Amino acid sequence: MHNKKVWKTVKGADFVKHIYTGKTKDVYELENGHYLLKFKDDVTGENGVFDPGANTVGLTMEGAGRAGLRLTKHFFEILKEKDIPTHYIDADIEEATMTVQPATVFGKGLEVICRYRAVGSFLRRYGMYAQEEQPLDAFVEVTLKDDDRQDPPISEDALAMLGILSHEEYKELKELTKKIAATVKEELAKKEIDLYDIKFEFGRAKNGQVLLIDEISGGNMRAYKQGKYIEPLELEKMMLEM
Amino acid sequence: MHNKKVWKTVKGADFVKHIYTGKTKDVYELENGHYLLKFKDDVTGENGVFDPGANTVGLTMEGAGRAGLRLTKHFFEILKEKDIPTHYIDADIEEATMTVQPATVFGKGLEVICRYRAVGSFLRRYGMYAQEEQPLDAFVEVTLKDDDRQDPPISEDALAMLGILSHEEYKELKELTKKIAATVKEELAKKEIDLYDIKFEFGRAKNGQVLLIDEISGGNMRAYKQGKYIEPLELEKMMLEM
Repeated sequence: MHNKKVWKTVKGADFVKHIYTGKTKDVYELENGHYLLKFKDDVTGENGVFDPGANTVGLTMEGAGRAGLRLTKHFFEILKEKDIPTHYIDADIEEATMTVQPATVFGKGLEVICRYRAVGSFLRRYGMYAQEEQPLDAFVEVTLKDDDRQDPPISEDALAMLGILSHEEYKELKELTKKIAATVKEELAKKEIDLYDIKFEFGRAKNGQVLLIDEISGGNMRAYKQGKYIEPLELEKMMLEM
Repeated sequence: MHNKKVWKTVKGADFVKHIYTGKTKDVYELENGHYLLKFKDDVTGENGVFDPGANTVGLTMEGAGRAGLRLTKHFFEILKEKDIPTHYIDADIEEATMTVQPATVFGKGLEVICRYRAVGSFLRRYGMYAQEEQPLDAFVEVTLKDDDRQDPPISEDALAMLGILSHEEYKELKELTKKIAATVKEELAKKEIDLYDIKFEFGRAKNGQVLLIDEISGGNMRAYKQGKYIEPLELEKMMLEM
């Protein structure tokens, strides 16, 4: 409660309560019950190098918040058209804010990863069986958000046993992940960009529905063009230029 | 082929071919096509301390091979009576050898763990959600045998995708694991010993059947009596005394 804060927004809701300070965004509650996400210019990484899987804020990039929000808005609006459930309501690029419906995370938060190529932690774990950049068929895996334990991977059975996610919810989350990743992959392909992997967060809405939450920006994915890795800010520029 | 070796056994098969040197046992092929496992006195651990999950041979204990074989023989003969498929044919305690039907491992080898209590690597990974020694309902997980990558856990989907194990085989292996672990747990309970966790290896027989392979000795499990951990050699003594 010592975090409680009164804050003036441009969204018509006069006062908000400060709920949470994240690595790349802050969360406020609006008077109408919606939540407001304020995107920051911090990105995750280590020693000044961007790494979407890192647990530390490695660097601050001017305009990173707005650029991430712009791409997030772009994808969330496409998902809305496809009737894929997300927390998105609307976004204000100028203010670097997104209005969403509140959702509770599973356990203390999960990351759901969809992989089209063997890179990153997949290769570090399964390098005995996989070649670097080997195609993977929209492989879905879940990791716990737990900085102290390096975000360990966790199986469907363990998620169910520990009361984090039911088997039913796991199936729903896996199906949604494949649909959303396929949508992003398709959008990137229009610019001849290859999606190697992407991570999502999901939550439960008040009515129990499983929703995509958080954001979909350059920092959530590894994208390549003609075999060359594209930095998040660069990706956001390439995706949104006319 | 430089490992080829001719060796005289007491089992009636005159000559055997050296197939493999493991951490705790060596494997020879018999002339009749069966394999002979020779149990060694080395046990896994680090810095002289036994650890069933360790990848290094930490110490040598006089009689460890024979004691491990005695318990293995005990359990495998119970499983045989229950028609649970294993590679076991017979054992010669004096020679510290076990005769088995050959089987190929899945991929480059898996470990299948069944957990009744949250300890060890489970707790190191999922300590955010589990209390030390919390009961677990015969939770099954699979890890890759890969010393260089610290035996990473792997999901059913990843096993199938990497061609290590089909979904059908995974189900079979999981069911067998639960049955075998329950059998061991029951045997230990007769001596008022609690089984916390146990690890198995499985293979495919020539006819494709999934079989329990390797051994079931003190080094495969964590056992406790009145809250006190029991060392493998001690466990073997307690289980086999009349």
